[in-house]
Amino acid sequence: MRPVAIIGVGQTKIDEQWERSIRQIAVEAIRAALIDAGREDAGTLFVGNMMSGILNSQNNLGPLVADWAGLKVPAVKVEAACGSGGAALRCGLMAVASAEVDSALVVGVEKMTDRHPHEVTAALATAADADYEVEMGVSFVGLNALIMRRYMHEYGWKHADFAPFAINAHANAMHNPFARLHQKITLEDFEKSAMIATPINLLDASPIGDGAAALYIVPADTIKGKKRILISASSAATDTIALHDRSEPLFLGAASRSAKDAYQQAGIQPGDIDLFELHDAFTIMSALSLEACGFAGRGQGPRLGLDGNIKISGSIPVMTRGGLKARGHPVGATGVYQMAEVVQQLRGECGETQVADARIGMAQNIGGSGATIVTHILQRG
Amino acid sequence: MRPVAIIGVGQTKIDEQWERSIRQIAVEAIRAALIDAGREDAGTLFVGNMMSGILNSQNNLGPLVADWAGLKVPAVKVEAACGSGGAALRCGLMAVASAEVDSALVVGVEKMTDRHPHEVTAALATAADADYEVEMGVSFVGLNALIMRRYMHEYGWKHADFAPFAINAHANAMHNPFARLHQKITLEDFEKSAMIATPINLLDASPIGDGAAALYIVPADTIKGKKRILISASSAATDTIALHDRSEPLFLGAASRSAKDAYQQAGIQPGDIDLFELHDAFTIMSALSLEACGFAGRGQGPRLGLDGNIKISGSIPVMTRGGLKARGHPVGATGVYQMAEVVQQLRGECGETQVADARIGMAQNIGGSGATIVTHILQRG
Repeated sequence: MRPVAIIGVGQTKIDEQWERSIRQIAVEAIRAALIDAGREDAGTLFVGNMMSGILNSQNNLGPLVADWAGLKVPAVKVEAACGSGGAALRCGLMAVASAEVDSALVVGVEKMTDRHPHEVTAALATAADADYEVEMGVSFVGLNALIMRRYMHEYGWKHADFAPFAINAHANAMHNPFARLHQKITLEDFEKSAMIATPINLLDASPIGDGAAALYIVPADTIKGKKRILISASSAATDTIALHDRSEPLFLGAASRSAKDAYQQAGIQPGDIDLFELHDAFTIMSALSLEACGFAGRGQGPRLGLDGNIKISGSIPVMTRGGLKARGHPVGATGVYQMAEVVQQLRGECGETQVADARIGMAQNIGGSGATIVTHILQRG
Repeated sequence: MRPVAIIGVGQTKIDEQWERSIRQIAVEAIRAALIDAGREDAGTLFVGNMMSGILNSQNNLGPLVADWAGLKVPAVKVEAACGSGGAALRCGLMAVASAEVDSALVVGVEKMTDRHPHEVTAALATAADADYEVEMGVSFVGLNALIMRRYMHEYGWKHADFAPFAINAHANAMHNPFARLHQKITLEDFEKSAMIATPINLLDASPIGDGAAALYIVPADTIKGKKRILISASSAATDTIALHDRSEPLFLGAASRSAKDAYQQAGIQPGDIDLFELHDAFTIMSALSLEACGFAGRGQGPRLGLDGNIKISGSIPVMTRGGLKARGHPVGATGVYQMAEVVQQLRGECGETQVADARIGMAQNIGGSGATIVTHILQRG
């Protein structure tokens, strides 16, 4: 494949944006990415989004967003549940790599807060198996609670052992102007937070929000300079959607396959990664992702949090801009936020949460409880 | 771009399939395409679908369908309203052309008949502009009715002048076992059919349905034999979603741009096309598509029907397997059905509706009332 690089990123603050439509939010991120890239148009547009049809009564987001951005270019929506952003980037990457276009814009966008929480909960459940899971009455957080409870039982962890994931995310988000939550939390806050679905508390779970992030990509050989960040690996994998269909429900098999493939593409080992934006929709997912990607043995993910290794100064910094937990989780946009954040780290633009001399960063975006996995590795170019 | 060829197609009958889930319908088409291609797996899967989130409470269709088909491969859903099928094929094509994979499956699927017609009408309206069109109370058929009424006024056509499009489609569908409707119609039937939204009658409109179609694609240079059909052009374009934002609402500007680009890619003229599977969601769209793609002057599309030129033996046969009008319009699947039908024509498999010595075929898939356009040209290879 023709190597591809990111030369522009844009993000909106994640918030309740009741006064703006989904197209306006998307276009704010696109304009920021265009300005950052120093470009005025692009060859094509891919929109990562999960639930605009359900929550915004709007499909056909491709031409809608393209038109509002002033771009008369081919544009489609890519959906892979909460992995939509990463999946959209992969489509953009293949469009550029195939030489179909010489540049592509990728925007992830979601507008979730206009509707009643019950409607949002039902919409989020469309990431799970409608016929065999949701039909039984379980919600998406309920499925993650089943995983977490079994994991605690199998490996002997207490609920408080997951606290460092949330505390670290909230601490880092304090320095990210785009983050949904600017609120430090303590172990006591974590333990006393409201129960959502046993054993998942409010502070185990990431907040929804309205937001968009965008990337501008080009063939790597057409650009030079310090803004150029190389995509040195792009890999996707899938697993069953339904938990009960998996032989090992406590191991993210697709995440493991996708990460191994990505390491091979980039020619690196997990130890070479300077920071890892993982998909911490719930604290349990942080543990499982770290294990699947080779940073911890099975059942040992929480140890990395307890030992402080996930902090900015640790051996494998995660959620350096707040992660899903505190930056926020506008689901179809999340994978693109992750990528924009890795780019900012590799450019050295992250101030107080800058990982020292970051050269290689990884992002892993997950759709459903491990069904869709998209892994990207970026390198300073 | 690395040239790409289609070596397998699969289709399900379009019908009310209340006893089967969306995954089962998709997998039937995938299995048929795999058998037709003589393959057992593929490098990746793209699912074209518009409204599974709304009508089937199911997003994350990529891994769902991949798992059910026994394929543990990267899989995502591509959405571009009723142009989703064509858009999914373009993603598959770029995946193969970029050398990311050496084969791809593309399936278009939609399951629409489980819900109340009011719900389906609301879901279809998500192809239009939610904030500026649908919010005013207009439905998707209503928007097309506005176009048709203005077109008749501007160019002086009577309603009956559109009848040949429907009559031809129904006549051809009689010989297509996958078609939704097997029912010949007459001019009298057309004129007496129930009014839907003036001037659109029931027989101007395509029927919804449950169905799936699939394609198996590979790099062209890896395969030989008469089953190989070359994709000699693939082009997409967008326009505003809202009709009132267009300078010329009676001309499909994006369709014209996409077709011109496709002709250039294939190195041909409109006169070289042996058959054209156009997007006849409503009879007015047949006229507009023929004009935009260079087969008729502005306002002259109906003439091709009245003169008999759209028939199998005519100068530009359209809807050779029934079109959206009679084969049926399971919206996200339609673009893939069109492609499968062009492949069948170029292979000479169409029996009584075979276009003699068909060598070059075109399909154009439309999302919204002209917002998303995807054009493909296929050649016997």
